[in-house]
Amino acid sequence: MELLKKKILDEAGVEEGHILKVDSFLNHQLDIAFLNEVGKEFKRLFNDNNITKILTLETSGIAIASIAAQYFNVPVVFAKKIETKNLDKETYDSDVYSYTKGRTYKIRVSKKYILPEDRILIIDDFLANAQAALGLMDIINKAGAKLEGIGIVIEKGFQDGGELLRKKGVNLQSLVIIDSLEENNIKFR
Amino acid sequence: MELLKKKILDEAGVEEGHILKVDSFLNHQLDIAFLNEVGKEFKRLFNDNNITKILTLETSGIAIASIAAQYFNVPVVFAKKIETKNLDKETYDSDVYSYTKGRTYKIRVSKKYILPEDRILIIDDFLANAQAALGLMDIINKAGAKLEGIGIVIEKGFQDGGELLRKKGVNLQSLVIIDSLEENNIKFR
Repeated sequence: MELLKKKILDEAGVEEGHILKVDSFLNHQLDIAFLNEVGKEFKRLFNDNNITKILTLETSGIAIASIAAQYFNVPVVFAKKIETKNLDKETYDSDVYSYTKGRTYKIRVSKKYILPEDRILIIDDFLANAQAALGLMDIINKAGAKLEGIGIVIEKGFQDGGELLRKKGVNLQSLVIIDSLEENNIKFR
Repeated sequence: MELLKKKILDEAGVEEGHILKVDSFLNHQLDIAFLNEVGKEFKRLFNDNNITKILTLETSGIAIASIAAQYFNVPVVFAKKIETKNLDKETYDSDVYSYTKGRTYKIRVSKKYILPEDRILIIDDFLANAQAALGLMDIINKAGAKLEGIGIVIEKGFQDGGELLRKKGVNLQSLVIIDSLEENNIKFR
């Protein structure tokens, strides 16, 4: 997606530890006009999949998924990362290991909001080690629903998540793949 | 807002501790078509305020603010609740006490994303004790920006946040005010 490449080259920074800083438009400030273009592109890529629901993970997937959902005319469900008072007792859970934080956390979705007849599109901002994606897929599997595909804004191609998901036969569509952030240079695939 | 009252009566539950459960459309599953109606209503209410930015707080304000922002053609900034690797070192911070969780947490916004010339609309899902709103107002104040108003989806009128903000002269617009959740009955003002 050329607009996204331009946005990354114009606005993103690279920080220590191969962190791509996109908080001017994706992670802290949200460029809503740009997210609409992202949403249209996901619709184009998954137009034939009869998506019934978009699943994402709090926090940074929520805005992207919500704007995209308008083009699919479907609701969004976001998995919660911590146990909260207001969540149903009946949930599908999965454990996700975060390499960034060096710890495992639990993600959960109320059983009410993923049904066996659902055809689900997972949307998230980044794909690196695919641990979050695998957790969401585990929840979809437990619910007996169907994963139609995964839409990612930025895939870190130098980490193994993308390869792992494609080997599993997942319909993974990343709007850009970054192959290297070495020496603060952003190299696209 | 009649559509919101209907949605609450049809879908919400009341749980112990005066918790209104709206996770079928606002807090866990997101009814995006409904959020568009909420966004249009906020636009109508703050149409004359020349809003340049919408400020909210992770997590539950993000979807509402993002959908509403489309009607204002402005970006969203969401305050972060915890220190994260990817946030700028230069931030405006404020401490927020959560009555629900019984503890104080820090919220922060990068100095890059609130500028002195900004005319800001705060949007959030709930207003109860207004601690989160006061924290966001503190950040706007530290940035030297102007608070144009606060748009709330559901105000708990039996808690003191609304009165506190109105006494301060804040242009507070709540789409519904609930005066009581006693005995699991939802009473609107």
